[in-house]
Amino acid sequence: MRPVFFLSDFGLEDPYAGVVEAVLRARAPGVRVVHLAHGLPPGDLRRAAYALFEALPYLPEGAVVLAVVDPGVGTSRRAIAALGRRVYVGPDNGLFTLAWLLDPPRRAYGLEGVRPLRPQGVDPLPGWAPGGHTFHGRDRFAPAAAHLALGLPPEALGPEVAVGALVRLPLVLGPGPKGEVLTFDRFGNAIATLTQAPLGGWVRVGGHRVPIRRTFGDVPVGQAVAYLGSGGLLEIALNRGSAREALGLKEGMEVRLEAPPPGGEPL
Amino acid sequence: MRPVFFLSDFGLEDPYAGVVEAVLRARAPGVRVVHLAHGLPPGDLRRAAYALFEALPYLPEGAVVLAVVDPGVGTSRRAIAALGRRVYVGPDNGLFTLAWLLDPPRRAYGLEGVRPLRPQGVDPLPGWAPGGHTFHGRDRFAPAAAHLALGLPPEALGPEVAVGALVRLPLVLGPGPKGEVLTFDRFGNAIATLTQAPLGGWVRVGGHRVPIRRTFGDVPVGQAVAYLGSGGLLEIALNRGSAREALGLKEGMEVRLEAPPPGGEPL
Amino acid sequence: MRPVFFLSDFGLEDPYAGVVEAVLRARAPGVRVVHLAHGLPPGDLRRAAYALFEALPYLPEGAVVLAVVDPGVGTSRRAIAALGRRVYVGPDNGLFTLAWLLDPPRRAYGLEGVRPLRPQGVDPLPGWAPGGHTFHGRDRFAPAAAHLALGLPPEALGPEVAVGALVRLPLVLGPGPKGEVLTFDRFGNAIATLTQAPLGGWVRVGGHRVPIRRTFGDVPVGQAVAYLGSGGLLEIALNRGSAREALGLKEGMEVRLEAPPPGGEPL
Repeated sequence: MRPVFFLSDFGLEDPYAGVVEAVLRARAPGVRVVHLAHGLPPGDLRRAAYALFEALPYLPEGAVVLAVVDPGVGTSRRAIAALGRRVYVGPDNGLFTLAWLLDPPRRAYGLEGVRPLRPQGVDPLPGWAPGGHTFHGRDRFAPAAAHLALGLPPEALGPEVAVGALVRLPLVLGPGPKGEVLTFDRFGNAIATLTQAPLGGWVRVGGHRVPIRRTFGDVPVGQAVAYLGSGGLLEIALNRGSAREALGLKEGMEVRLEAPPPGGEPL
Repeated sequence: MRPVFFLSDFGLEDPYAGVVEAVLRARAPGVRVVHLAHGLPPGDLRRAAYALFEALPYLPEGAVVLAVVDPGVGTSRRAIAALGRRVYVGPDNGLFTLAWLLDPPRRAYGLEGVRPLRPQGVDPLPGWAPGGHTFHGRDRFAPAAAHLALGLPPEALGPEVAVGALVRLPLVLGPGPKGEVLTFDRFGNAIATLTQAPLGGWVRVGGHRVPIRRTFGDVPVGQAVAYLGSGGLLEIALNRGSAREALGLKEGMEVRLEAPPPGGEPL
Repeated sequence: MRPVFFLSDFGLEDPYAGVVEAVLRARAPGVRVVHLAHGLPPGDLRRAAYALFEALPYLPEGAVVLAVVDPGVGTSRRAIAALGRRVYVGPDNGLFTLAWLLDPPRRAYGLEGVRPLRPQGVDPLPGWAPGGHTFHGRDRFAPAAAHLALGLPPEALGPEVAVGALVRLPLVLGPGPKGEVLTFDRFGNAIATLTQAPLGGWVRVGGHRVPIRRTFGDVPVGQAVAYLGSGGLLEIALNRGSAREALGLKEGMEVRLEAPPPGGEPL
């Protein structure tokens, strides 16, 4: 049985994540479910895309990655399963854009053939039926993820979809020198689309000039610093503070690298 | 062994939910624990009652449902285990009112006979003893849930309680046309006590007149819409926004259905 | 295999806690992971120390306690494993101060010899490498915790560290009469460093005089009350409100016990 790694913006104020796990267990008894994160900002696809990018290298090959951040639920956006070295289940809205840089899908299927879990053990309530049309996590993605966790054929989920037709967010990761603020983490650190952080150099962002060091412990408390973050991208942080707030950073803001001075030594 | 589905308002800022799981595992080694939600608004019984109602049809028969939202902890409210097609453990404060519409209890027991888990492997600290009187989740509900997960007889927990004497919240679910705002979800969607959402009709709430559609994708971004939600109740939402804030909705507010126009077709 | 009890300030907005679990599972397949709490206020060592103190008596002997609240990540603070009746893995920053009152470490080791999990199954991305220097939870603490969960020798993790040299927070628990506000819980209850709460007595704190009762149900709604809390320490609460806000309490504020009146009976 393949383990399921599950990420969403469902939060913990509602039982949505728990219900999805209940459906996974009903359809794939004994499945291992690891909750990656359920507090993603609602509908924030860039944040979700980065979370999956950061987690991916630590998820085993063969794993099922179930991700539900879905501002378009209830619209005509497609529901998909995509197969690379891992298996991806979720809305076709660009959520997996960055993860797929590391593990490109080779085949994909729509989920039109997926049947919801039939509610069980409930008395009829006059005029009421469990269900509704808007909880694809429970009714479509979880049954598809359970199906794939069991190692059953993806062809049974729905029609094949060309991998080139899958939705991608307009995000490019690269060495720069120009990039942008991709997203933020809980601590207010900004994550940039830059794949390097040359020691001794500088970052220009939002009118600030921030020194690049090995880690934020290399500057005094309260000072801004850039470094290579845990996802392998350049981050801009404040030692024991929020760079987002202190520097007024915003998603999409330009980030530009300045090389270390000529002859400068790495710090 | 029966699985335990656990819901609370303990949040994740304190180790309360984790300690309850530790006690479940100490008393029922190998038990399956599924966390339904721990971020329920503190003491919000309506929200908790709805969360349990929404989750219930997806929880297997025989499951132990452990729910601790307990504004009256430390008062004389009773602690109970109730047996329907599933087993319910928690405070007798109305928390299970809506779940029991779907799965009515046939017998119930007080938890007066439950023994807390004896703390283990700790040095004596002068003048200190682990314990205190206020953590029923750890000292009463978790041991009772573990006992029932093991399939042991409920009679051992405490004296039988008449199911008619169990506390219920004054909530009625029905087809309308008149109902009320039951509660809200994380996204600011209002859930009403109405079990239908006739397509093409309207909902009057808080001075607004909101069209009923199949899903919120059927109206433009930023517009209010009502639809049959994932729990089978009418919901009032804003496409990519918070209806609670935008429309100034409040718990208990009257919600009234207006039928589709005569001869009108379902949309 | 020893179970791992995992506590952090990672929150659920980022996949950090999930990635740590993924690393634990990769290195110790089949390990039992119990999440104690991940919503601790970022960098709040007193709160974390109290959370571990409160949970400890309910964690089985032999358990691995993995705790990552680490305002000094990226500085030269040490990473350690300490062995008492349980095994502690985390930063050497005082986090375990109160837990160790109950279960003192007998030996400790630095984690200098720990190897990060090698990322797997990812395509090369030009100019990018997974990693970075700042995620010790993933790269150092999780591999060390997995190693110890497998029952492997702690000597392999790094050089021995004198237990007397481990960092402790300047916190003293005792019967009083003088103590301080240690921290707060989610509900705004203040936890004091006092190990008793003599019934019928009073507590002086922040210019207020608060009666000591058995539980907060013993005073009217909205009134302040002190009692022996679930961790065995004196707590100051408001019945159905936040004592922190209503009484303007702050961490470190003096708390002083006044004995019950002479001849007074326990309530």
